Amino acid sequence: MSNSLFGALFDRGAADTSNEAWLQAMLDTESALARAAERAGLAPPGSGAAVTAVARVDFLVNENLSAAAASTGNPVPALVKTLTGLLPADSTAHAADAIHLGATSQDIIDTAAMLIARQSIEAILTDLSTAAASCATLTRTHADTVMAGRTLLQQAVPITFGLVTAGWLTALDEARRRLHEVRATRLAIQYGGAAGTLAPLGDKGPQVADLLADELDLLAPTLPWHTNRLRVIDLAAALTSACAAVGKPARDITLLAQTEVAEVHESSPGGSSTMPHKQNPVAAIVILGHTKRAPHLLATLAAAAEQEHQRAAGAWHAEWEPLSDLLRLTSSAASWTADLLSGLKVDAARMRANLDATHGLLMAEHVTALLAPAMGRLEAHQLVARATVRATAEDISLADALFADEQTAAKLADSKISQLQLQTTLAPTTYLGATQQFIARALSAHEEVEADLAPKRPT
Amino acid sequence: MSNSLFGALFDRGAADTSNEAWLQAMLDTESALARAAERAGLAPPGSGAAVTAVARVDFLVNENLSAAAASTGNPVPALVKTLTGLLPADSTAHAADAIHLGATSQDIIDTAAMLIARQSIEAILTDLSTAAASCATLTRTHADTVMAGRTLLQQAVPITFGLVTAGWLTALDEARRRLHEVRATRLAIQYGGAAGTLAPLGDKGPQVADLLADELDLLAPTLPWHTNRLRVIDLAAALTSACAAVGKPARDITLLAQTEVAEVHESSPGGSSTMPHKQNPVAAIVILGHTKRAPHLLATLAAAAEQEHQRAAGAWHAEWEPLSDLLRLTSSAASWTADLLSGLKVDAARMRANLDATHGLLMAEHVTALLAPAMGRLEAHQLVARATVRATAEDISLADALFADEQTAAKLADSKISQLQLQTTLAPTTYLGATQQFIARALSAHEEVEADLAPKRPT
Amino acid sequence: MSNSLFGALFDRGAADTSNEAWLQAMLDTESALARAAERAGLAPPGSGAAVTAVARVDFLVNENLSAAAASTGNPVPALVKTLTGLLPADSTAHAADAIHLGATSQDIIDTAAMLIARQSIEAILTDLSTAAASCATLTRTHADTVMAGRTLLQQAVPITFGLVTAGWLTALDEARRRLHEVRATRLAIQYGGAAGTLAPLGDKGPQVADLLADELDLLAPTLPWHTNRLRVIDLAAALTSACAAVGKPARDITLLAQTEVAEVHESSPGGSSTMPHKQNPVAAIVILGHTKRAPHLLATLAAAAEQEHQRAAGAWHAEWEPLSDLLRLTSSAASWTADLLSGLKVDAARMRANLDATHGLLMAEHVTALLAPAMGRLEAHQLVARATVRATAEDISLADALFADEQTAAKLADSKISQLQLQTTLAPTTYLGATQQFIARALSAHEEVEADLAPKRPT
Amino acid sequence: MSNSLFGALFDRGAADTSNEAWLQAMLDTESALARAAERAGLAPPGSGAAVTAVARVDFLVNENLSAAAASTGNPVPALVKTLTGLLPADSTAHAADAIHLGATSQDIIDTAAMLIARQSIEAILTDLSTAAASCATLTRTHADTVMAGRTLLQQAVPITFGLVTAGWLTALDEARRRLHEVRATRLAIQYGGAAGTLAPLGDKGPQVADLLADELDLLAPTLPWHTNRLRVIDLAAALTSACAAVGKPARDITLLAQTEVAEVHESSPGGSSTMPHKQNPVAAIVILGHTKRAPHLLATLAAAAEQEHQRAAGAWHAEWEPLSDLLRLTSSAASWTADLLSGLKVDAARMRANLDATHGLLMAEHVTALLAPAMGRLEAHQLVARATVRATAEDISLADALFADEQTAAKLADSKISQLQLQTTLAPTTYLGATQQFIARALSAHEEVEADLAPKRPT
Repeated sequence: MSNSLFGALFDRGAADTSNEAWLQAMLDTESALARAAERAGLAPPGSGAAVTAVARVDFLVNENLSAAAASTGNPVPALVKTLTGLLPADSTAHAADAIHLGATSQDIIDTAAMLIARQSIEAILTDLSTAAASCATLTRTHADTVMAGRTLLQQAVPITFGLVTAGWLTALDEARRRLHEVRATRLAIQYGGAAGTLAPLGDKGPQVADLLADELDLLAPTLPWHTNRLRVIDLAAALTSACAAVGKPARDITLLAQTEVAEVHESSPGGSSTMPHKQNPVAAIVILGHTKRAPHLLATLAAAAEQEHQRAAGAWHAEWEPLSDLLRLTSSAASWTADLLSGLKVDAARMRANLDATHGLLMAEHVTALLAPAMGRLEAHQLVARATVRATAEDISLADALFADEQTAAKLADSKISQLQLQTTLAPTTYLGATQQFIARALSAHEEVEADLAPKRPT
Repeated sequence: MSNSLFGALFDRGAADTSNEAWLQAMLDTESALARAAERAGLAPPGSGAAVTAVARVDFLVNENLSAAAASTGNPVPALVKTLTGLLPADSTAHAADAIHLGATSQDIIDTAAMLIARQSIEAILTDLSTAAASCATLTRTHADTVMAGRTLLQQAVPITFGLVTAGWLTALDEARRRLHEVRATRLAIQYGGAAGTLAPLGDKGPQVADLLADELDLLAPTLPWHTNRLRVIDLAAALTSACAAVGKPARDITLLAQTEVAEVHESSPGGSSTMPHKQNPVAAIVILGHTKRAPHLLATLAAAAEQEHQRAAGAWHAEWEPLSDLLRLTSSAASWTADLLSGLKVDAARMRANLDATHGLLMAEHVTALLAPAMGRLEAHQLVARATVRATAEDISLADALFADEQTAAKLADSKISQLQLQTTLAPTTYLGATQQFIARALSAHEEVEADLAPKRPT
Repeated sequence: MSNSLFGALFDRGAADTSNEAWLQAMLDTESALARAAERAGLAPPGSGAAVTAVARVDFLVNENLSAAAASTGNPVPALVKTLTGLLPADSTAHAADAIHLGATSQDIIDTAAMLIARQSIEAILTDLSTAAASCATLTRTHADTVMAGRTLLQQAVPITFGLVTAGWLTALDEARRRLHEVRATRLAIQYGGAAGTLAPLGDKGPQVADLLADELDLLAPTLPWHTNRLRVIDLAAALTSACAAVGKPARDITLLAQTEVAEVHESSPGGSSTMPHKQNPVAAIVILGHTKRAPHLLATLAAAAEQEHQRAAGAWHAEWEPLSDLLRLTSSAASWTADLLSGLKVDAARMRANLDATHGLLMAEHVTALLAPAMGRLEAHQLVARATVRATAEDISLADALFADEQTAAKLADSKISQLQLQTTLAPTTYLGATQQFIARALSAHEEVEADLAPKRPT
Repeated sequence: MSNSLFGALFDRGAADTSNEAWLQAMLDTESALARAAERAGLAPPGSGAAVTAVARVDFLVNENLSAAAASTGNPVPALVKTLTGLLPADSTAHAADAIHLGATSQDIIDTAAMLIARQSIEAILTDLSTAAASCATLTRTHADTVMAGRTLLQQAVPITFGLVTAGWLTALDEARRRLHEVRATRLAIQYGGAAGTLAPLGDKGPQVADLLADELDLLAPTLPWHTNRLRVIDLAAALTSACAAVGKPARDITLLAQTEVAEVHESSPGGSSTMPHKQNPVAAIVILGHTKRAPHLLATLAAAAEQEHQRAAGAWHAEWEPLSDLLRLTSSAASWTADLLSGLKVDAARMRANLDATHGLLMAEHVTALLAPAMGRLEAHQLVARATVRATAEDISLADALFADEQTAAKLADSKISQLQLQTTLAPTTYLGATQQFIARALSAHEEVEADLAPKRPT
């Protein structure tokens, strides 16, 4: 049936972790190995091409590998047999010798996983790049859009929305850099044979390994890594960081889109069949539905790194689906995020209104600093504290509250602090500190990331 | 394509968590609600039957709910619309009013999850029952099969294999009891409408809720539990306990089947395409590949229990796939275990040989106890300690080592401890303590579980 | 140094999981075992009392068990030696024989863990009981306090605050029931000796085990559970459920206390040294700082349940600190929650104001239901949808928006729907559905829990 | 009391995550900030030195910061007040202005965490360096020590122990490289003030931030990272990788030290009070007791990365203890590992004996390769398969089994394959493939790591 129930939500990215993709990646590994074997002189000329010609997932549609997979504990032996059977009758004799040469099942599955990971990372990087570009645009557009900074879910001091998106941008860029790094330095072939010695190849093992890496454009590792799973942890951690980076704007947007806050809106919020007024931030919500799972998939993979001897009895098997899931979910979340950020609607007026709703209380720190030189820090703090209570109680501005108090008004007069000066101090725009400098830093760092990542991406 | 790549290994149980099963469970919830509405007088006579007649997943094959699911954040609104469209033209007007009455999407998905959970638990309980029965048989058969007890992966003192399987049995029975309990006391309908008040039904909400529970044979909860996810934690914890219970024999069997130990073998071990001598304990390995994932799925669900207000923005969505996965994996692991244990081959001779390989060292504690009354605990301990060193060094038995030492031999003679007496003390069968009593307790407790669970299971 | 840095926040409960508590629990286990041995006739009269007299943690202040613990991998051997040394010279000879009789280190640590768990559960249940009582009071007080129900962080339909707290109450009660159940049915002694046979005791093992259970008022298990860790999972899951139950009000309170929502406030919110206006909901925040960790501690313990043979090589050791942490954190969170809920300040006026701020949009569903009979569901829906757009755009009420539209006004007149009738329909109090019934159910269920738990608690 | 119960096992490393260390790190941050403020001209000359002089944890022994920490939700406000109070009376007026300038509590705690992390990483790197050196030595010593390679806990084909330790070495080196990288590129100061704008400093925020970074020799980040926790994930993932790297030898050693395998032994195995023959691999076991916890602490921290707005309400607080725990456990595990590997005893004779115990079955693949050219792959495989069955059944060598079969013997004669030739083929040393090449690669990569890491380490 065509109704992928949750897949519609959680498999939205371009990463392909389907059964077909896995099978093709395994076939690609086998055919690359055949070509490597031929290049090393261990298989007859033409056998690489012969195997490559038949190593196509669409040739397997009528095969049933499942039952065989269950009896051996993994799908490779059945796949190898099937692949051999696909060779044309005349070439079989020779080309068959090139198939699976010196390899163990884990070599094929681990290398396939790296191919799947590479394709997924490409997909994720593309979406994260789009998301980052949107963030950069939002940052430039809203560099001066004043809003309330919120800490512990309470309004704290003024910031600008551009600073918020600069924060999102910086995290996205960090995640991109790390994913890029993992792709470039940690995705390696697996090729060690039964117990990591490549014994059937005599002393030609490392040579074939290097050729296999060359064929697949993956790294050749120092050693087979059958039970050294640090590459998997690095990969999973980078994916989890990417999820954290997209989870941050999603979390903020669900909060900023609250009915009572209403500072941002999704371009296509989800409706309700019964409540016509509902404007659910569906994308942000669904992204959180992805990202909340990543830490646990990471933990699954990290815990599975305790592997016995030369091949693990269970821990390796525990990696397959979770790694697929983590790649899929990260890609899907990145795809949702690219859309979410490109269409985000920002209500600057509402941001300002929410900031002003507390009548200048967020400027209390600033006002205190203004009064302190004249009357000492302690007294200034006390006067302002008293005024904030009055402002809240009487629903008046902090400035009015200060002047409403006779004693304070007198002190202010003594100190030559005019009401105008005070009003100025209460303007949020006067208390933004390093906001613009930080925004400039973030945009500049973003350009560096763009420059660093761009040329290294395959064309 | 029919090649479920990893599914062949990880979807072997009878639990059905497929897209089709989820859709049918949602349709079953909708049709039960229609019937409940009719029974409460809120929908015209016949509307329940009319809805029920069309609420079949096979009627949806040509529908595409995926795109719609993505735009609303869940598949229910599209499903409701499709279901309504399936009603015959003449009945539509009235029966349509019975569809989704007062419900919110979460009501349908959560209730469907409970239906999926119930079917899965049934499947799991059936397999665990088979597994427990095999354990009970193994326990009776091998009550006297002496082997080395091993602590910290070192041989410790003698036990019997029946005591080992009694331990497996007890854990399986505990897991069964808890799963049964969760099914009986925690699987409840979800029905609260938009925000848990069932407002569209006026004061008839609780009545319809009770009727819905009745229709589906699920519990009616005190309150809608939209953001009280303790039921999900209880369910997930019980599933994780079941995984722990089947992971234990799997772990032990991989260890007992080691080439160097070789005390048990699977009935159908997996071969290797290149190494004809390999006898891999495939079932045990694959089971561990399941069970190692359960704790993290449990953590995902427990962490997702932090849910906002009356419906969570993301945390609820994060539950869907993990709950499906946990049900599927537990069922699959239980199915593998039922097969594994029913066919387990036990090599009693090898068990005895491994026990004897250390020349009676495991009896050192017992020998010390024999000598202590005659010569004091301290001296006895020293004599035996010296003898164990000699026995190991000279590859002789502990008894021979004791008598080989002139001083010790003299002391033993003084103490009237004959070589025969000593030999008897060195017999592992004389040092099994409460083994038989514990086995009897485990079998008796097992019978109680059988009795307690049997009548409550639907026929 | 006395400055427990984070302990001030995270060790606030009455659960005692300190080093001293653990040592005392181990000593209590040893002395109970000595008494049990004496009762079974395996130790001389008076030895139980002699051991009990010296098994006090304050007698160990000058001992250093740490180094010895490191060399054997656990602290028990050194503790046993120290305890033996504490016996008075004349009694040593005999009473020493009663110490650690037949036991292995794991027996002492596991049983001590159960004692620590019991004390912790008592402490947690006391705090949860206080929290639940506060919830019940809030529920009664605010049964009619209308507020906006919020789904996906958007205002949805009206509810009352009493219904919110009824939801908190129900979860707290479920968690209490389960903790109570675990205490009553899962906390058992551990006593199996080296490999679970209690071999040194001959056939008296089960008898001594039963006496030990009697001495400690813990359950006697079917079998020693050295490598069957389902009890630990059950315990940890119940604690995690308790954390989920207290995390829910904490999450809601942080959201309801947001500056822009301001519907509830803590009695003693935390200030800021620089921002005098800050009113941070410290208790709720800190509670979340606890509860977010519980799922991962649960996962640690569940993953550690894969234990080898008769004693695990590492997995058992991985349980000790996490179990301590989970007990401590749950107790601490429960303690914070008891305080948080007892002092919670509710701003009913602000709740109403927030509800009204959307000009009746939350009643759109209700208005549609009013119009539908007169003009058909479809047209009613369209009219209302159009009116909601106008109401939002012109900042007028939904009723005014409906009448402002000439066509609609005409239709309403035709349908004999008066403006008064419409105003009534727009009153949130007319659309609360089963709110009071659900509240009554929750309070009634709460009374049942009180009754069920009360008599079983030790006096 | 001085008896750190579990700390003796789990706090063995040189990482200092004690309360005192945390307080000192916070004080170091405050004093560095005072110096930075002075350098920026924002505090009077001498104030940096004045604050630094009193910012010592031993000056706080009589203070009680705990209660205050609970009321504000973190210990910083009380610490700042105490620190200010410690300034000498005459300097207070001015130097006090330099304290906590522009900072928020999170700035101090996060920066302190980075200082704790740096010290811990240094400690971990030192121990991992020692462990790696031992691995390199073992690798050189045992490059030719033949043993059975084991996959899925079954003997597979021959390897050497040097290849095993080369695998350990490679993982340790990868973990070291990543930890080093994280220390160099990800440990940054946190300094953003209330909401990340450093508003009180006007436009001098970034300058002071850079000076603070300079004072502490930490990185200056692009932006304050209050709610961008990717640094924490990177740090935690690197620590978890280190745990995986030390968990691997620990797991292998527990398996290789099994009574039935007995190929390696710890230098100081742990005894048992009652079983004198027990030689428990205590260090390896305890290391696993550490490493099994790391993935869950990583998950805790990764899940906590979903942080709201400009400061998280709970998720940040959830990081403190777990990060401390992860640093402590990784350091402790690394310390245990350094000792474990430096003293590891290898029984080469037993390795050979275990390999030979299967009578050449591990060479079946090799023999098949020898026969295939003469009689075709299929027939060769069948002959060998038949011979392996016979060899096992009759407890004779594979060579003898082949010649014992008349038909096979005839074929071998036809093929001019002599018994000598066959015997040679059965020698494990003839089937080690790339073992030496891989060992050389690992040692060479190790030297690169040594070179790369050495100069960058502080002297």
